[in-house]
Amino acid sequence: MILCDVGNTSVDLFYAGKRTKLSVDDFDPATLYDTVYFVSVNSAFNERVQNYTNWHNLRELIDWDKYYPTMGIDRIMVCEAVEEGVIVDAGSAITVDVMRGGVYQGGFISLGLRAAQSAYANLSGALDVSFNFEVDLAKMAKNTPDALTVGFLAPLIEKIESLGKPLYLTGGDGLLLSRYLSGAVVDEDLIFRGMEKLLQKGSKC
Amino acid sequence: MILCDVGNTSVDLFYAGKRTKLSVDDFDPATLYDTVYFVSVNSAFNERVQNYTNWHNLRELIDWDKYYPTMGIDRIMVCEAVEEGVIVDAGSAITVDVMRGGVYQGGFISLGLRAAQSAYANLSGALDVSFNFEVDLAKMAKNTPDALTVGFLAPLIEKIESLGKPLYLTGGDGLLLSRYLSGAVVDEDLIFRGMEKLLQKGSKC
Repeated sequence: MILCDVGNTSVDLFYAGKRTKLSVDDFDPATLYDTVYFVSVNSAFNERVQNYTNWHNLRELIDWDKYYPTMGIDRIMVCEAVEEGVIVDAGSAITVDVMRGGVYQGGFISLGLRAAQSAYANLSGALDVSFNFEVDLAKMAKNTPDALTVGFLAPLIEKIESLGKPLYLTGGDGLLLSRYLSGAVVDEDLIFRGMEKLLQKGSKC
Repeated sequence: MILCDVGNTSVDLFYAGKRTKLSVDDFDPATLYDTVYFVSVNSAFNERVQNYTNWHNLRELIDWDKYYPTMGIDRIMVCEAVEEGVIVDAGSAITVDVMRGGVYQGGFISLGLRAAQSAYANLSGALDVSFNFEVDLAKMAKNTPDALTVGFLAPLIEKIESLGKPLYLTGGDGLLLSRYLSGAVVDEDLIFRGMEKLLQKGSKC
């Protein structure tokens, strides 16, 4: 059994506890003979795999009453991985969601670190500086890189902390954010754990 | 006496308690005979007024030891207006600064509302939605517009509230932010009050 997360530019495969990331353009679904369970935000890709009987879209297993119709599929999957806690997926956007007793409580979406830095840079040449991840977020800043880093990260980190525990971090910047969030569990494979749990619960596929 | 705030695209005049905003390209400094005290982020404009003896750059009156060298001149002016409190200037960026007993404590810079919405829209078509300013920021969201609004505003508003009182709001979105910040003083002319105070203190011009 292979798990597969399909984005707009890449295909992320999870097999026997190992991940392989491939370009979506280079990837040929016919190369996989094993049963594949996938989630996808890529409608062109969905059409490509429609006639492969070993490819199963996990979207069909989701209990949509728990979530909301426009919620990203990746976000639902990381929520499915967690019965109880706060889930932060720090990628191009940073999604923050709360699960209590297996019930989705809602969440919010912040900009990802790269998107935020680009947005500052677009405002003014003076704000086209890199974040300083060594900054003390508890202090008011007295230079431009610190002012941007504190401005973007301090409110977000304090908000996340206010939501309670346990706290799970995933996504490309999950490890980086963990330095500001004590006691957080970093799990880069959280989306695949959600897919596994959904499969265990599910019956439709 | 005329006070003048020069940006990259506009010239904002303050005279006898009234404001007049003009395009920087259309504006001719020779049309003003009165004494003009100005701040400017526009170096081309600064050269244009260099030979007018009635134009005085307030930059020369600033005690730079209180602030930091790359700090925006507009931001310093709104700080100069306030002896004690938190100053939020919500324009293309949202600057948040703290003054205690006339001493600058530092601050931070968030994206402005428009910049944040554009940055979300740039991430994905699904996030190209308007903020919902009617949302309850205390609740986790269950639809996309609310998730973006809570994601951007709730952390920022809670951070600002944590900085104490009194709280002053200025800039184009100051009034809008005031609905989330109880007890805040909205003063759209705060920059000119800072310029007036600096002039009263100053001696160089």
